[in-house]
Amino acid sequence: MAERARETVELMNMCMIRDPENGRVLVMDKQQGYRGHTFPGGHLEPGEAVVPSVVREIQEETGLTVEKLRFCGVKDWINETHRCLLFLFATEHFSGTLVPDGEEGPLCWMTLEELRGADLAEGFERTLRMFLEEGLCEFYVDAEDRWEFF
Amino acid sequence: MAERARETVELMNMCMIRDPENGRVLVMDKQQGYRGHTFPGGHLEPGEAVVPSVVREIQEETGLTVEKLRFCGVKDWINETHRCLLFLFATEHFSGTLVPDGEEGPLCWMTLEELRGADLAEGFERTLRMFLEEGLCEFYVDAEDRWEFF
Repeated sequence: MAERARETVELMNMCMIRDPENGRVLVMDKQQGYRGHTFPGGHLEPGEAVVPSVVREIQEETGLTVEKLRFCGVKDWINETHRCLLFLFATEHFSGTLVPDGEEGPLCWMTLEELRGADLAEGFERTLRMFLEEGLCEFYVDAEDRWEFF
Repeated sequence: MAERARETVELMNMCMIRDPENGRVLVMDKQQGYRGHTFPGGHLEPGEAVVPSVVREIQEETGLTVEKLRFCGVKDWINETHRCLLFLFATEHFSGTLVPDGEEGPLCWMTLEELRGADLAEGFERTLRMFLEEGLCEFYVDAEDRWEFF
């Protein structure tokens, strides 16, 4: 075991906000970067705690305040230069007023069926399993783009 | 949001192995580094997936093969040079023969009461809450050693 193993890691978060009254989830149609329909989220600031980073990003992107987050595991993938590590959360607890057009793209509430039929961001169909299936801890993609669920 | 925010991160894992027949948990009395009673675990190798790293470390340190891991959240803390990120898992599913004296210290099965009364590794009493309490996602310690549960 390397006692001081360190890696360069890009730390990110994503949150599935589900309205318990109608089962719809909040979807962002991102217009740049990771384009397509996905859940809101973003990057951690250096040294920032994970859960507060989710609350901050959701506030910034959607106008909503989320709480009582449930940890749904991680997605991590290896690219040429570093590891990307995405912390996945879900909640049914939110307050505030939705900003329909976020900086990164329009937001709307969708059923899971509508979401699955939409133009999804790359790999998001698989990432979605992490939020919906019991017992999954990790969605891992290696440097050769081979993926596995654990 | 910084589109390419990256940090130097030390990635680690820890696993609470609980024997469902008697409720005892597997404890290691570490003799070096992070000394004192704690759960087994170790460092991820560069680019290694998180869950397989737990299986590998537990195999190396205890001789046991674990499966059906349950994700108990993360502990992360900020030191002078980087972020340490510890992935926390628990399981009641294991097989194989226990190696009583691991390279890093003796191993034994303890009740939680016995464990709480033992000479614990630094901060482990608080880390233990992550494995035992519902609804916790993160145990965060900032650069000034202030800690918070989320």
